[in-house]
Amino acid sequence: MAYLNENYEKLQAGYLFPEIGRRVNAYAAQNPDKKIIRMGIGDVTQPLVPAVIKAFHEGVEDMAKIETFKGYGPEQGYAFLREAIAENEFHARGVQISADDIFISDGSKCDTGNILEIFGMNNIIAVQDPVYPVYVDTSVMGGRTGTMQASGYYEQIVYMLCTAENNFTPELPKQKVDLIFLCFPNNPTGTTSTRENLEKWVAYARANNSIILYDAAYEAYIQDADVPHSIFEIPGAETCAIEFRSFSKKAGFTGVRCAYVIIPETLKAANSKGEMVSVKALWSRRHSTKFNGASYPVQRAAAAIYTPEGKEQIAGVIAYYMENARIMKASLEQQGFTVFGGVNAPYVWVKTKNNMKSWEFFDQLLNEIQVVGTPGSGFGPCGEGYFRFSAFAARENVIEAMERLRSMNNE
Amino acid sequence: MAYLNENYEKLQAGYLFPEIGRRVNAYAAQNPDKKIIRMGIGDVTQPLVPAVIKAFHEGVEDMAKIETFKGYGPEQGYAFLREAIAENEFHARGVQISADDIFISDGSKCDTGNILEIFGMNNIIAVQDPVYPVYVDTSVMGGRTGTMQASGYYEQIVYMLCTAENNFTPELPKQKVDLIFLCFPNNPTGTTSTRENLEKWVAYARANNSIILYDAAYEAYIQDADVPHSIFEIPGAETCAIEFRSFSKKAGFTGVRCAYVIIPETLKAANSKGEMVSVKALWSRRHSTKFNGASYPVQRAAAAIYTPEGKEQIAGVIAYYMENARIMKASLEQQGFTVFGGVNAPYVWVKTKNNMKSWEFFDQLLNEIQVVGTPGSGFGPCGEGYFRFSAFAARENVIEAMERLRSMNNE
Repeated sequence: MAYLNENYEKLQAGYLFPEIGRRVNAYAAQNPDKKIIRMGIGDVTQPLVPAVIKAFHEGVEDMAKIETFKGYGPEQGYAFLREAIAENEFHARGVQISADDIFISDGSKCDTGNILEIFGMNNIIAVQDPVYPVYVDTSVMGGRTGTMQASGYYEQIVYMLCTAENNFTPELPKQKVDLIFLCFPNNPTGTTSTRENLEKWVAYARANNSIILYDAAYEAYIQDADVPHSIFEIPGAETCAIEFRSFSKKAGFTGVRCAYVIIPETLKAANSKGEMVSVKALWSRRHSTKFNGASYPVQRAAAAIYTPEGKEQIAGVIAYYMENARIMKASLEQQGFTVFGGVNAPYVWVKTKNNMKSWEFFDQLLNEIQVVGTPGSGFGPCGEGYFRFSAFAARENVIEAMERLRSMNNE
Repeated sequence: MAYLNENYEKLQAGYLFPEIGRRVNAYAAQNPDKKIIRMGIGDVTQPLVPAVIKAFHEGVEDMAKIETFKGYGPEQGYAFLREAIAENEFHARGVQISADDIFISDGSKCDTGNILEIFGMNNIIAVQDPVYPVYVDTSVMGGRTGTMQASGYYEQIVYMLCTAENNFTPELPKQKVDLIFLCFPNNPTGTTSTRENLEKWVAYARANNSIILYDAAYEAYIQDADVPHSIFEIPGAETCAIEFRSFSKKAGFTGVRCAYVIIPETLKAANSKGEMVSVKALWSRRHSTKFNGASYPVQRAAAAIYTPEGKEQIAGVIAYYMENARIMKASLEQQGFTVFGGVNAPYVWVKTKNNMKSWEFFDQLLNEIQVVGTPGSGFGPCGEGYFRFSAFAARENVIEAMERLRSMNNE
């Protein structure tokens, strides 16, 4: 008799984004004449830049000739990409990350879920609330939590509350925690962490032999010079942190699929005998046993963003999205909303008016003005009463969505 | 204090293929003038066919224009690919698999490892011995086994012995098992299963509410008309089986990355209350929470193998590899080796002479004649004393490798 993993029964409803998709599709089917503006999934809308397209074609062409054909690649990724990342993302900022510590993958969603596999079941996991739902959902599926309580929180997870009062930047946990998911610039709130704040986290992790799982998927959107792009900008982080990066938002790769994880050689955790051993060795073993490398033409395409043309071109796309964010933030504030984010991140985080529930606001916007955003409560209980607008949209749609919202509020 | 997953400590040495890579690289570094013929990893060597290259370029070009750009795709895969698979792989053989039951992924290695996540820890897992090492290694890493015994077997895994006596086709297990990995055409032995034999397995699984995890990664190499390509050719399998398929070997996608899993809507397993519920729903939840879809241009490339030109072209590549297999089998038999496989599979499975150990033969071939194969013992204890040659090589290398082997034996 085959038994299913009973932990899946603890999950609530569907994963957030498919649920949004279902509601939007149902509405669209019943209202085929309405023009829906989609700012819900946080998906990029601008095409790949020319330098990336050129390299992608070249990568495909390599696969057409026996002399340049590539079969299985190195599971950890091609050296040309890992070295370009080390040089451009880290060395250029004075951060000493070795190409050997970089693992190329097909996406940060996979990486942030899979990373838990190399850690024992007895670790206490801490997450921000609200935050990208994958950290909690994969913890639940992996049997690392109890059941969900009436509060909306799973037992055994430590939630670090992020509210308007702390500017959506969590305090250090009062109890000891072992694995700490931090996401900056934050999805969904668009807030960032100061260097001083990250120093506190690194000090906490070092004092407690904890590991920070730092999700920096949105680092390319940081505009302010004093906001850290990487946890490894903080001295000592190389002994207490893993970082997740992605080309999805940086270079429009959501449909192309390429990301990476940085695990410094110097990062150690306890084995079953209590000895401190290499974390990277375990991830390397997992990576080579359960993954077969990212697509070669995709890796070629990713490396092209580090050419001079590639850098300039993706900077243009990022500036386009950030101008969208600026327009939304300004319009929403003018309409009397309280707004967070949108300055160093492509997300604008809005407090609903009159304490309206997030999903109620979602349904209102969908039904009345055909604008799709993301209900804040989908990111955790502290997100209730908030709503996320994504700047990943065409300029004219951003302007029209804000105009529709203004009209609705003035009716 | 962060703790590592203690189950990794149970793993023996490195994953087989990286270990081969290490030995070969070490030899090559010390003997830069020697021409090494690599037939070890089971990696394709022929370039992608023109129809695939054309569609791949078109997919890349779609990403260059805002009108055709694709961001996040459906996690389960694009309908164009799922429908082409359902039609060409199944309906064309009279097997009623719905496109809705097909999940596109980036590789069968990931799928066959990840599938265990949706099953409870109390399932008894059965595997062939010898077999592709990922089933056992991922079971170990997931904490589904005890430690390895002196016999080379992990506690709690049921090994189904495949030997020359049973023509490398296992008997039904005597005890009840819950999840049964079957791999046909088999990696590494190159043997296939008859329809009658698969009927016995389906009857066993139905009688015991077990689930067959059927790895058909090499089905494209089946030449004999009466050998089943899919477990779903057996009536009743739609209630007791999951099938894994890949474009890696079928169309040379080892460096491109695309595969799929078939989970029929009708497949059920027990939840924690003992109720029989949908397996597909759990996999769908896992897939959408921990995966973000395969690369769009890659899916376009994969779909091209189902065009008339694509079919003809990949058939030509498969015929090329199978002629290599025929040449190897004939030569090895002439040299007095006992040989299995190589008829409906791209692997030739050879018994060493004088009971030489597999790794000893590996080292001898590498050091004396610079030919790389795969030690049979890397696939399980029953593989000891055997050696796998891969037909995925250039014709001239196959001929030269056989010639070098003949010379070595005649010395």
